[in-house]
Amino acid sequence: MAPPNALIVTPRDYVFGTESDLLVLECGRTLGPVTIRYETYGNLDEHRQNAILLLHAFSGDAHAAGYHSPDDAHPGWWDSMIGPGKAFDTDQYYVICSNVLGGCRGSTGPGSTNPDTGRPYGLTFPVVTMQDMVTAQQRLISHLGIDRLLAVAGGSMGGMQAIQWSVSYPNNVAGAIVLASTARLNAQGIAFNAVGRNAIMSDPLWNGGDYYGGNTPDRGLSIARMVGHITYLSDRAMHERFGRRLQERAGFGFDFNDQFEVESYLEYKGGTFVDRFDANTYIYLSKAIDYFDLGGKYGGLDAAFTDCRSKFLVVSFTSDWLYPSYQSKEMVVALMRQEKDVSYVEIDCPFGHDSFLLETDRQGPMISSFLETVYTDVQSTR
Amino acid sequence: MAPPNALIVTPRDYVFGTESDLLVLECGRTLGPVTIRYETYGNLDEHRQNAILLLHAFSGDAHAAGYHSPDDAHPGWWDSMIGPGKAFDTDQYYVICSNVLGGCRGSTGPGSTNPDTGRPYGLTFPVVTMQDMVTAQQRLISHLGIDRLLAVAGGSMGGMQAIQWSVSYPNNVAGAIVLASTARLNAQGIAFNAVGRNAIMSDPLWNGGDYYGGNTPDRGLSIARMVGHITYLSDRAMHERFGRRLQERAGFGFDFNDQFEVESYLEYKGGTFVDRFDANTYIYLSKAIDYFDLGGKYGGLDAAFTDCRSKFLVVSFTSDWLYPSYQSKEMVVALMRQEKDVSYVEIDCPFGHDSFLLETDRQGPMISSFLETVYTDVQSTR
Repeated sequence: MAPPNALIVTPRDYVFGTESDLLVLECGRTLGPVTIRYETYGNLDEHRQNAILLLHAFSGDAHAAGYHSPDDAHPGWWDSMIGPGKAFDTDQYYVICSNVLGGCRGSTGPGSTNPDTGRPYGLTFPVVTMQDMVTAQQRLISHLGIDRLLAVAGGSMGGMQAIQWSVSYPNNVAGAIVLASTARLNAQGIAFNAVGRNAIMSDPLWNGGDYYGGNTPDRGLSIARMVGHITYLSDRAMHERFGRRLQERAGFGFDFNDQFEVESYLEYKGGTFVDRFDANTYIYLSKAIDYFDLGGKYGGLDAAFTDCRSKFLVVSFTSDWLYPSYQSKEMVVALMRQEKDVSYVEIDCPFGHDSFLLETDRQGPMISSFLETVYTDVQSTR
Repeated sequence: MAPPNALIVTPRDYVFGTESDLLVLECGRTLGPVTIRYETYGNLDEHRQNAILLLHAFSGDAHAAGYHSPDDAHPGWWDSMIGPGKAFDTDQYYVICSNVLGGCRGSTGPGSTNPDTGRPYGLTFPVVTMQDMVTAQQRLISHLGIDRLLAVAGGSMGGMQAIQWSVSYPNNVAGAIVLASTARLNAQGIAFNAVGRNAIMSDPLWNGGDYYGGNTPDRGLSIARMVGHITYLSDRAMHERFGRRLQERAGFGFDFNDQFEVESYLEYKGGTFVDRFDANTYIYLSKAIDYFDLGGKYGGLDAAFTDCRSKFLVVSFTSDWLYPSYQSKEMVVALMRQEKDVSYVEIDCPFGHDSFLLETDRQGPMISSFLETVYTDVQSTR
């Protein structure tokens, strides 16, 4: 149940890309119609200068804050950071969050109907990239009547989009907040994604991606998610949370009913994930992450950042071994070489990659003070 | 092809546990007959004091050195360390390596025939532990006429057995060499093992472990192995070896034929693994590793080590994030508190957990000097 004074939000859909106005993708293919599911919190100011676009991570969605109904058990994925007086202060800012292109939470993705066939796209859906996600978001922002965003902000895959925004639309972003992210996916990250995709594709129910309307490849998707969860936590966080405790048993039974708590946790997380996530979206989004390599794309990070006009706040976490601090530092050093306005903080926090979702005490004030600075700038140049 | 002067070795089998002499397992069940596949290199000295037992890691086997025939493409798994003038100097020492109980490389395991049914054990095979593996090895050593081993030595799961040897048979081991290992598996390690087992058990061909004589659960086992390989390498080693290079393509094709080299490598490694490894052995050995917790078993590490009489050489590697150095240090500190003779070295090496298999320049001299010291001791107390 939502608390009595909770914010109740209603998701909305923006549909574009009909006939003359198709979305042109990085691969050269076009897509349309495209639906982008989004939510907003707070109000747009009269000068349309206080809009912040939040960019969700791999398994996130448009529902970043508040509740969909008073009966909702859980709020949006970043509710701790969004609201009156919070880091993304909805008394001051107009906060937007949309589900990415290729997603499965309301926006067009591989599970959507292909207008040419009347059937779900499946693997006929085009391979999308971070740039494509950002292009689709830009269409939404433009539709909302916003010329220049006060800020873009996201962690992990959301951080990749934030960087891509500042590179693709230098005149339309005043500030970029990049949390627990990287300018390129490393071999180890590609390797983990490859395992996840293999697990899904090895599930006989996956059926070459053509499973809609029938049984879904839940076992494969669940295993992919288990791998993901390990990479989101740290060794220490897992040790502190689960240790070597057995589930429902005091001592070893020496049979396969012996289960450690960490095993049960992962299996539970994998099992519930399949209720809200589409296996093909897992494949497409993980591929988009694999592709992400800003330096590779623009001929070096320096070249990528040359024309950027936004301020940057980059945050990494000591225990994040999926996107370790050294990857954030590579980005920060390149931004500094290009004489961009960049603040970098490494937060000592034990929660691993998930820290950006969990740590609010230190991350929150940094973000709100960064937003305040950018907002002051924007207002002074009005 | 083996080089012209290569050592050609012939594996042997020791069979025990017939009727009156069954192997009693930690779970309380008995097993027999038991076959232990083993190889030896070098010669036992007249006092039977120069025998070293090597203990293989998860996917290893009895074939540690030399070639099985002149046509063999590859030597044993630790050939770089075993031979005349090498770390385990076969001019001086008699080196033994056996396949573990529960294995699938010649020793009795879940794929062996259950004498009660005439069919493969499958999941009716008892759950075995490090202690059970060591008990079976002790029977072999005794059969070979060796009362006291000069040393036991192993990395990873082999290191666990080495520790267990020194604890279970304090009077029968003069030196214990423990490489890239731990006295207990942490939650993160359990989590990775759980993913591997889930991948195997989700493969429809696994069929509750009853697949012998039919199609084997190769996809599941292959995915389990892919996960394993990621944990054996370091982020840096993967980056240096594969980076973000694409397989057989210069640029992105934006389709699912795009494969990064690291993906191809993992899929290749997973695909070849199924030819030499049994999926049920994967399940049993990973469970034995999960169970391993010396402190938990003996009421603390100090209590576990109290009666140990061997010297210890403990080696960890800076880039090993599967069994990180801090886990070796926990062991070393407990040994020091118990006033045991322990040498500890942390080697700065980029190869991750696999370092113990790959690094010979620094590891080799440490091992040979440790063995020399122990051998001098043993000879002086003759």
